[in-house]
Amino acid sequence: MNKQIVLIPGDGIGPEIIAAAQAVLTKAAAKSGIQFTFETHLAGGAAIDAYDTPLPGKTLAAVRRADAILLGAVGGPQWDQVSPEIRPEKAILGLRKELGLYANLRPVRVPAVTANYSTLKPEIVTGVDVLIVRELNGGIYYGERMEAGMVEGREQAWDTESYSRPEIERILRLACQVARKRRNKVTSVDKANVLASSRLWRKTAGQVAQEYDDVRIDHMYVDNCAMQLVLSPKQFDVVVTSNLFGDILSDEAAVLTGSIGMLPSASLGDGPGLYEPIHGSAPDIAGQGIANPIGTILSAALLMRHSFGAEAAAGQIEAAVERSLADGYRTADLYQPGLTKLSTEEMGRKILENL
Amino acid sequence: MNKQIVLIPGDGIGPEIIAAAQAVLTKAAAKSGIQFTFETHLAGGAAIDAYDTPLPGKTLAAVRRADAILLGAVGGPQWDQVSPEIRPEKAILGLRKELGLYANLRPVRVPAVTANYSTLKPEIVTGVDVLIVRELNGGIYYGERMEAGMVEGREQAWDTESYSRPEIERILRLACQVARKRRNKVTSVDKANVLASSRLWRKTAGQVAQEYDDVRIDHMYVDNCAMQLVLSPKQFDVVVTSNLFGDILSDEAAVLTGSIGMLPSASLGDGPGLYEPIHGSAPDIAGQGIANPIGTILSAALLMRHSFGAEAAAGQIEAAVERSLADGYRTADLYQPGLTKLSTEEMGRKILENL
Ligand SMILES: CC(C)[C@H](C(=O)O)[C@@H](O)C(=O)O
Ligand SMILES: CC(C)[C@H](C(=O)O)[C@@H](O)C(=O)O
Repeated sequence: MNKQIVLIPGDGIGPEIIAAAQAVLTKAAAKSGIQFTFETHLAGGAAIDAYDTPLPGKTLAAVRRADAILLGAVGGPQWDQVSPEIRPEKAILGLRKELGLYANLRPVRVPAVTANYSTLKPEIVTGVDVLIVRELNGGIYYGERMEAGMVEGREQAWDTESYSRPEIERILRLACQVARKRRNKVTSVDKANVLASSRLWRKTAGQVAQEYDDVRIDHMYVDNCAMQLVLSPKQFDVVVTSNLFGDILSDEAAVLTGSIGMLPSASLGDGPGLYEPIHGSAPDIAGQGIANPIGTILSAALLMRHSFGAEAAAGQIEAAVERSLADGYRTADLYQPGLTKLSTEEMGRKILENL
Repeated sequence: MNKQIVLIPGDGIGPEIIAAAQAVLTKAAAKSGIQFTFETHLAGGAAIDAYDTPLPGKTLAAVRRADAILLGAVGGPQWDQVSPEIRPEKAILGLRKELGLYANLRPVRVPAVTANYSTLKPEIVTGVDVLIVRELNGGIYYGERMEAGMVEGREQAWDTESYSRPEIERILRLACQVARKRRNKVTSVDKANVLASSRLWRKTAGQVAQEYDDVRIDHMYVDNCAMQLVLSPKQFDVVVTSNLFGDILSDEAAVLTGSIGMLPSASLGDGPGLYEPIHGSAPDIAGQGIANPIGTILSAALLMRHSFGAEAAAGQIEAAVERSLADGYRTADLYQPGLTKLSTEEMGRKILENL
C-alpha cells in the first residue's frame, strides 16, 4: 500500500516536532506494510512570509490529494499584527472547512505515570480517559456574522450560532461509533435551557441515540460540564458537543493532564484526516531542540488508526510512548529530578527504539 | 434608614437557606443602623404550581419596588416537563431582564481552612481570590433566535450572539471599578480570533481601559482562560466576559473551591440588586434541614456591600462565616471526621453568634 502524507510543520517548534514524528510514522507504517510518500507544505506564519497568505493554493491542492495530513503548529507573535483576513488561524479554519473536517477528536488520558503533572489531585485524575468529540465545521465559527458597524446609532457586532439536523446527526453518529470501541457512553453537551440551536441539538441527539441501543447517551448543560470536568473527570467516556463549546471544554479537559505537550488530536471528515498536537507553536522555545514531540507522535498514532485503520501500528506507537515515559525519559517541559532529560530529537529516537 | 428587602425562597432547599440568611441579614443591618422590612414572594417552580407562571406579576411588581432581593434557588425535577415558556429558569432570565441586572459578580475565594475540599492540589488553590464579572443582559441569551424549523429542506435552528458598544462599556467600567478595590487587574475574556462580537468587545475593552490608568487590562481567549483557571487560578484578579462565556467560566471557577455550597453571587443593574447563592435547589436534600446556608449568607453580605454600601456589615458577616469555619463547624456537605456537623439552622445560629 502506498500512501501520500502531507506534512505541514508550520511555525515555531513545528518543524522540530514534525521531524521526530515523521521518523516514528515511517517506521510504524513499514511494520504494517504501508509505504508513505511525504510532501512538505507551508501554512500559517511561514506561508504568510512566503506568499502573503496563511493557506496558499499550493498547500490546499496538496492536502486535497493527500491520504492524510500531519500538522505541527501555526502562529507566533511576529504575525499578531497582520491584517485579520490573513492571520495564521485562518489556515486552521480554512483547512477545516476546505477539507470538510467536521469532527475533532481529542483523547485525554491520564496514565498513572504522568498523573503527578496535573494540578488536580492524583486520585481525581489517575485513570481519566475522556474523548472529546467537537463538531468542527459548523456553529458560530462559520455562521453569518456582522463586523462592528453602526446600527441605529450604536456600534454593534454579531455572530450566529446555527445548526442543522444533518450536521448534528453526523457528529452524533460518529460519537456513538467511537463510543462503541470504548465504554459505550456518550455525554452530549449543550445549553438547551437557553439556546434554540441547543434544543435542536438535544432533540436530534436523543433521536440518533435510538440507532445505537448499546450506547448510553446523557445530556448535560455546558456550564455543568465545565464543572464536572474538574470535579470528577472519570465520569466521562465520550463527550460530544458543538464547535464553540468543544473549543472551550476540550482545552479545559486537556489541562487536567498537566502536560498538554503530550496530547494529540484528529480532525476527520469524508476525505483525508488532519492530525496535530493540541499545543501551540511555542515561539519562545523554537529552534532550541527542547520541545516535546509526544503530542505530535501520538497524533501520528491517531493518523494510523483513523486514516488507515492500522490499529496495531497505532497501538504500537502509543505503547512505545508509554514505555519511554515509564522508563523515566522526559523532555524539558516535564522534567523532574530523578528522571532523564532528553532533547526533542533524543525523545523521538527513544520512542523509535521502543517501537 | 428603612429598606425594603424582597425574599424569594424559591424551590427545594430555598426556604431553609433563606431563613438562615434572613436572620443574619437582620442582625447585620441593625448593627449598621439599617432597618429592613421583608416581603416574601414566589418564583420558579413554586410559582408555577401556584400561578402557572414562573415569574408572577405580583413578584415582579414587588421586586421593582424593592431596595434589594435575596433569592434561594429555583427549579427541580417536578418542573422538568412543563412547557418551555414557563420553565423555572424563565424566572431567573426574566428577573435579570426586567430589573436590568447587567452585571453578575461571582467572587471565588479559597481560604486555607477550606482548601482541602478542592479537587485541585492545595498549593494551586490556597489563596485563590478571583472575581468573575459576567455580562448578564445581552449576548446570545437575549439575541434573536429561531427555534427548529425547516430551511431549504433541512431542519435548522439558530441564535445570535450580539453586543453593542454601550453594553460592553458599562460592564467593562464596572469591572475596572471593582478592580480598583481589589488588585487593580482585569482580564477581559473573548474569542476575538473568531467572533465579530468578540472583536468589538476587545476593541471596546481596550478603549475603556484607557479611562482607568491605574488598572491593568489583559485580553485572553476563552479557551485559554478555561485552561488557565485550572492551571494557575491565582493569576486572576477580576475576569470580565460575555454572558455565555461567563456562564461557563464562572461555574468552572466555582468548582475550584470544591465547595459550591459556600459561594455567593450578586446581580447588579441600575435598580435593586439581586443576590443568590450559586448552587441549585438541591431537591434531593430539601426539607431535611441539612443544606449549607453559607452561600446564601455570603450573598447577604454582598447585598449589604453593593446595595447599601455597608462595607462594615458585609465584612462582619464574612468574618463571622470564616470564624465558624475556622472553629470546625460544617454542614453535612462539607463534613469531615474531626469537625463538628451542624444542621442548616445550627450553622445559621453559629454564624449569628459570631456576628
Ligand atoms: C486558533 C483557533 C481559531 C482554534 C479554534 O478556536 O478552533 C483553536 O483554539 C483550536 O481549538 O484549534
Ligand atoms: C438557569 C440558567 C438559565 C442560568 C444561566 O445559564 O444563566 C444558570 O446556569 C446561571 O448561570 O445562573
